[in-house]
Amino acid sequence: MSLKDFIVHNRAKSLEELATLILIPSVSAKGEYLSECAEAVVALMRLHGLTAEVFPTENGPPLAFGTYTSPFPNAPTVLFYNHHDVQPAEPFDLWDSDPFTLRVTETQAFARGVADDKGHIVSRLLALDALRKEHGGELPFHVRFLTEGEEEVGSPHLGSWVKANAEKLKADYCIWEEGGVGENDEPSLYCGMRGIAYFELRIKTIAFDAHSGMGGSILPNAAWRLVWALNSLKNSEERILIEGHYDKARPADAYDLELLSRLPDTEPELCELYGIKPGEFLGGAMTSGIELRRRAVFEPTLTLCGFTGGWQGEGGKTVLPSTASAKIDFRLVPDQDPEEVFALLRKHFDTHGFSDIEIEYTGGQKPARVDPRHPLVRLAAETGEEVYGKPATIHPMVGGSGPMWWFSGFLGLPVIAPGIEYPGVRAHAPNENIRLVDFDLGTEHLVRLLQRLATPAV
Amino acid sequence: MSLKDFIVHNRAKSLEELATLILIPSVSAKGEYLSECAEAVVALMRLHGLTAEVFPTENGPPLAFGTYTSPFPNAPTVLFYNHHDVQPAEPFDLWDSDPFTLRVTETQAFARGVADDKGHIVSRLLALDALRKEHGGELPFHVRFLTEGEEEVGSPHLGSWVKANAEKLKADYCIWEEGGVGENDEPSLYCGMRGIAYFELRIKTIAFDAHSGMGGSILPNAAWRLVWALNSLKNSEERILIEGHYDKARPADAYDLELLSRLPDTEPELCELYGIKPGEFLGGAMTSGIELRRRAVFEPTLTLCGFTGGWQGEGGKTVLPSTASAKIDFRLVPDQDPEEVFALLRKHFDTHGFSDIEIEYTGGQKPARVDPRHPLVRLAAETGEEVYGKPATIHPMVGGSGPMWWFSGFLGLPVIAPGIEYPGVRAHAPNENIRLVDFDLGTEHLVRLLQRLATPAV
Repeated sequence: MSLKDFIVHNRAKSLEELATLILIPSVSAKGEYLSECAEAVVALMRLHGLTAEVFPTENGPPLAFGTYTSPFPNAPTVLFYNHHDVQPAEPFDLWDSDPFTLRVTETQAFARGVADDKGHIVSRLLALDALRKEHGGELPFHVRFLTEGEEEVGSPHLGSWVKANAEKLKADYCIWEEGGVGENDEPSLYCGMRGIAYFELRIKTIAFDAHSGMGGSILPNAAWRLVWALNSLKNSEERILIEGHYDKARPADAYDLELLSRLPDTEPELCELYGIKPGEFLGGAMTSGIELRRRAVFEPTLTLCGFTGGWQGEGGKTVLPSTASAKIDFRLVPDQDPEEVFALLRKHFDTHGFSDIEIEYTGGQKPARVDPRHPLVRLAAETGEEVYGKPATIHPMVGGSGPMWWFSGFLGLPVIAPGIEYPGVRAHAPNENIRLVDFDLGTEHLVRLLQRLATPAV
Repeated sequence: MSLKDFIVHNRAKSLEELATLILIPSVSAKGEYLSECAEAVVALMRLHGLTAEVFPTENGPPLAFGTYTSPFPNAPTVLFYNHHDVQPAEPFDLWDSDPFTLRVTETQAFARGVADDKGHIVSRLLALDALRKEHGGELPFHVRFLTEGEEEVGSPHLGSWVKANAEKLKADYCIWEEGGVGENDEPSLYCGMRGIAYFELRIKTIAFDAHSGMGGSILPNAAWRLVWALNSLKNSEERILIEGHYDKARPADAYDLELLSRLPDTEPELCELYGIKPGEFLGGAMTSGIELRRRAVFEPTLTLCGFTGGWQGEGGKTVLPSTASAKIDFRLVPDQDPEEVFALLRKHFDTHGFSDIEIEYTGGQKPARVDPRHPLVRLAAETGEEVYGKPATIHPMVGGSGPMWWFSGFLGLPVIAPGIEYPGVRAHAPNENIRLVDFDLGTEHLVRLLQRLATPAV
């Protein structure tokens, strides 16, 4: 039986496994069913020949962790990172079927987590089966298979567990969660994620809201102070004004720019999607072509995610707000550090007359980078082209954030994400789905990549 | 029967009249029962010997207007301005009794509108009765008695009616709504109100909210643009930066400052109330004593009353807002003009790169000034001292706003407000109330003032 046939033949069994995970609404934002889902993943790992158990984290939900020791000499070690938590499924009424019951059609599978990220867990376990079959029931590499339960809420307890268990996690390669094909059904790979530092800013100036006619000239207005404090952070040319913020920001290098130049031009789609004209991106007419792609992922950002204060209902109310607050996120490029960003932010406010602004650091992740020249990236691209029949696109970096640094930075592993997704998966949204063809091809891609990693040619 | 006895004797009848007005929940913010209340006021005016009828306004609720022609030679004309609309009574559960049923105790009367402003309507009608009794059933002055139904929502339709009916409203003096005693039960008078211009600012940058990781470096953020636009309007030293905004602002003169110096020192109470320390008022340590009092009422202000944009719920959401909005109010001193403020604001945004900020002008009133040296003010102070046994405090200006300019400015009348309130009336709040003693004394004060206005000594 060919590899393709094996995967198609066993897909139904994988989807049954997936259905058991889907049934557990492991929504980390609500802290629900996370232990149960970790247990279910451990059960699946054991079913696929791993030695697995649930590990507690410090003050967080447990992780599922499985290992396998290869009998082959000089076998490398592959670490798999996935997560078994999901985003909330609300609003339920926008789903065409129950989000926590797997629905499989001729061509697709629908449910919360089918793409992000439970589908990947079962795809990867199926890939291990396929490789065992090729190697007389054993695997030509050692396995470390980790799934966490808090990826969707910023992985707040993953890092300390990784630190405490670095020895257990020693590996040669890391296979990352997610991944799949791009707009033209070509294999799509990426070599890093921006970091993030998220803060809530709060200020209270007076005991309670005052009448603007009585207090407007004499009482400090919390909303105004927040405006001035925010304004001091970034100017309208998008330059972050916090002293030292850019000091460690590493720019894209020549090879990054070369990779960017090979990416498809998505500018017309972006303009269409967001209802803007070319030249209306931040930075104006310059922000086009390669520069648009570079800026989208290699620039540190400071986003004002929301602010609130005073009267926001219908009509006018002549009130002088006593409190105001804002939520901001910084996206970080290598080698910025969220803890340092926090310290610089506090110092900035203190030295600019805003020591009355309270800062809550609500979450952070370090930027992660994989060298696009690493053999792992090359092999993933080559095997991807073999499987999909199209050259892979390689994104030197993506704009979003995740816990990748713990693997690429702290553990020092090359990381790559060959996966089962396509641009229409609707991750985090109603009617999350995968195409069955992507499940088959993504699994095959992973098998072929792992096969090559296990040979001395690497 | 003495004047005092007459008022005490007839108070019960006035409270019955008041009860009929209170029963009509004429909440202008909801546009409810305003015609009904105007009709009820007309009925009361007729009961007190005025020729009265309801007058329609252009696109607004009707006014009640009554007149009386004195048979006395050289009788002056007195114009009374009051309003029959009230603030909403919500939250109902904070009231000790039904807000729309008059509750009278030994010493007080409770209901929405009992102070602001229905109580004044019946007090003034009772004052007319008292004066008729003194003058053989007639009044020694002509009467123009006007009540409107939109004072609590900024009197949007009063001005055009006043303009169209200026001839009808010709008068020598204007008795204003509200008024009463200060903290020490002394008669309290004021000689002007700041104007106001209220705006909503809105911006939309992209079709819908974006992911901050994807859009943070390339898509325009509505919340940031609003912060920068607001910041361009006023600096943290409270200086309004709109070119020309202060050009027509008339400062307090020497006599205003003298009047301010005679006012009681409320700084400790203000600090206590708002939980701030001396020196924490806007302007710092300078803002104390007379300067605190001056600044509170003679400075143009720009208050950020509220702003809203992006994610405001619990926890973090990495969203890039597509829309944001703010509500701002300018308090205006003589001789600023709200229409001019609007034009300067638009010009400011357009010349500072913020033509994408949409401005809605939601309401405005011109600042009003009465010369504190006018005989009407002196007579009101003198008769106040006679009635209350304490010298009157004269505020050269108050910080709040109202439609006074149409009378003091457009009609050119001296305006004064002797009334039935005390500092605990809780206008606009639950358990709005008056003390019966203030009803009696306020009515007596008005009678004595009107008596003096009708004599040639003025």
